[in-house]
Amino acid sequence: MTLAGLRLAVLAPITWPTPPPGYGPWEQVAFNIADGMRRRGLDVTLFATGNSAFEGKLESIVPMGLGEDPNLNGEVFSALHMANLFQRAHAFDLIHNNLDWKPMTYALGSKTPPLITTVHGFSSPQILAAYYACAWRSFFCSISDADRDPGLHYLATTYNGIDPTEFTFEQNPGDYLVFLGRFHPEKGAHLAIEIAKRTGKQLKMAAIAQDEEYFHKEIEPHIDGEQIQFVGEVRREARNQLLSQALALVHMNTRPERFGLTIVEAMACGTPVLGANSGSIPEIVVDGVTGFLCDGVAGAVEKVPALTSLDRRACRARVEESFTVERMIDRYVAAYERALEQKLPPAPTPEQLRWREHDWWDRPMAFTDIPPKPHTQPQMRSLK
Amino acid sequence: MTLAGLRLAVLAPITWPTPPPGYGPWEQVAFNIADGMRRRGLDVTLFATGNSAFEGKLESIVPMGLGEDPNLNGEVFSALHMANLFQRAHAFDLIHNNLDWKPMTYALGSKTPPLITTVHGFSSPQILAAYYACAWRSFFCSISDADRDPGLHYLATTYNGIDPTEFTFEQNPGDYLVFLGRFHPEKGAHLAIEIAKRTGKQLKMAAIAQDEEYFHKEIEPHIDGEQIQFVGEVRREARNQLLSQALALVHMNTRPERFGLTIVEAMACGTPVLGANSGSIPEIVVDGVTGFLCDGVAGAVEKVPALTSLDRRACRARVEESFTVERMIDRYVAAYERALEQKLPPAPTPEQLRWREHDWWDRPMAFTDIPPKPHTQPQMRSLK
Repeated sequence: MTLAGLRLAVLAPITWPTPPPGYGPWEQVAFNIADGMRRRGLDVTLFATGNSAFEGKLESIVPMGLGEDPNLNGEVFSALHMANLFQRAHAFDLIHNNLDWKPMTYALGSKTPPLITTVHGFSSPQILAAYYACAWRSFFCSISDADRDPGLHYLATTYNGIDPTEFTFEQNPGDYLVFLGRFHPEKGAHLAIEIAKRTGKQLKMAAIAQDEEYFHKEIEPHIDGEQIQFVGEVRREARNQLLSQALALVHMNTRPERFGLTIVEAMACGTPVLGANSGSIPEIVVDGVTGFLCDGVAGAVEKVPALTSLDRRACRARVEESFTVERMIDRYVAAYERALEQKLPPAPTPEQLRWREHDWWDRPMAFTDIPPKPHTQPQMRSLK
Repeated sequence: MTLAGLRLAVLAPITWPTPPPGYGPWEQVAFNIADGMRRRGLDVTLFATGNSAFEGKLESIVPMGLGEDPNLNGEVFSALHMANLFQRAHAFDLIHNNLDWKPMTYALGSKTPPLITTVHGFSSPQILAAYYACAWRSFFCSISDADRDPGLHYLATTYNGIDPTEFTFEQNPGDYLVFLGRFHPEKGAHLAIEIAKRTGKQLKMAAIAQDEEYFHKEIEPHIDGEQIQFVGEVRREARNQLLSQALALVHMNTRPERFGLTIVEAMACGTPVLGANSGSIPEIVVDGVTGFLCDGVAGAVEKVPALTSLDRRACRARVEESFTVERMIDRYVAAYERALEQKLPPAPTPEQLRWREHDWWDRPMAFTDIPPKPHTQPQMRSLK
């Protein structure tokens, strides 16, 4: 089957332009998909903000991102943005939804072509109610094998990809460990500090303070500017530099990682990973080759001396082989082909719609998967 | 044309059951419509919470109101509630939306039967963007001639109605003025106080403190428990008693009233109204017959002596003639007939979709039309 000429609609979030000039991970993935498919010859229409930069067709309801103009009523324009696509659904052969669960509720009452939803994250247990209710109207892609809900039927795992040319491979790095991301207990910066202290290694941390109480209690007291350094938030070249010069990335999540873009970026620089042996990490890090899968701090401490024995070229090769944008597009092409051939699952049963009887009903809300809002970033600057 | 057997879907809000046991004005109107149409022989399906009490068909996604269980994710279940209707739209001949603008965005991408939206209130200027974008997929009803946006095409004015048997007609009332509703500058309780003081009349106020700063600054200092009384929030029989024994209701809104259910309730008790000469009030109050239309405090003060000369039976008669639930149903029946005969307006032009060029774009947000949340009520109890 060839997809050339296939009329594809890609639905992006509208918090930021697509691609985003700064923060905006979902917008970035949506751009990578839309642009990648355009390069493969599909007839792509991107639904995004009006100030998005896309070489294919662009459809917009708002001139700029909701995050760029606080006066915009997000509820109104998000709804119109979604409706704008479903209103034109008949003009497409396939719709790729990168905007979580809500667009699927629009598909329930609409005769649409096949809909593919990439589950970028489950922000609260109750959105599973929406996923279950809509499962008969959308195919799902997960961003790792680990990040799957057992009640949903998935079409494919479509790992996010990066452009490796944006990262500098470094054969001869420095001797420090690096932590990159957000200060939140589940991201394990406190474990990275413990590993650095127990091995006598320097640690450089670049992150935003998503959980400020955690930052002030568990992180800040350890920052001495020497062994334990906090370098603020880093972007582009500074990020590249920080990663490529590191002995290893420490990524000891306490909650299973969904994907882990930072891991891939580090490996693209040739930097191996000390990663928690949970979630998606075993799918990305080849134990003993591109880093080590560690059970807890003790396990990680044990592996630190072996880091220099790893071939940094293997890290880079792993990314080029499996985690580039082009490989992501390959996976989505295969997923699209399957979606066009397959039938969707049947409508939910009355039992499935008895929300309160599901085991996820009483799970505490986990909002930590919601991307941190940009206005938390300026607050960080004062902490530098 | 007869509507008997017409398959009607009525979409109610799901903050409270339909009808609501306590607060819940939109749920109450939705119930009155659904139940009234059922009594007229239509085949009615009410989309509401599972614990709603309706003698026709009931369709629900949530077992109880979002306002009854704070653990419910309102965004998820509101979306599923709306989608649940549009998913079954083909099973109806007509859909009556009492849930503001958002359901219309679902109709954009859906082949639905005619949709009628009652505009119960414009909660923010930007929701006009949604109304304009969806105007070609829904007919609109306004709740008064005054409460119309000039850019929208309306099918009918469908005044809300009450059951007059729930209110006691009183020929020989007391000598006090009454204020009923919410403490918010635009509701004019401070003007009622001024009128009472300048005429030497007693004033009894029953209201919830929607704007607490306003209450503490403009209202509370005047409450002496004698001439100016605050009697808390009153419901059902206490409300009936308070209204029927009053010399007049003072309703001096500083912002044009959209409809004014309290005015109708007072008149059902035989109680005339000192009302601001703006918004919907001239459509309800017959000047010099069921009350007086007043330009400001001075105008109202002038009319107070004439209140006893009004025939209280005329107030009751006005309600029975024009503002009962049955009259409301008559108006909606006529509106339904017109909707089934007429074509919807055309799709919006690109100019109409350039939101920033509309004169409403820079208007300040006016959230005062959003019904006050129930948890503001318990706070009031401490003020009694």
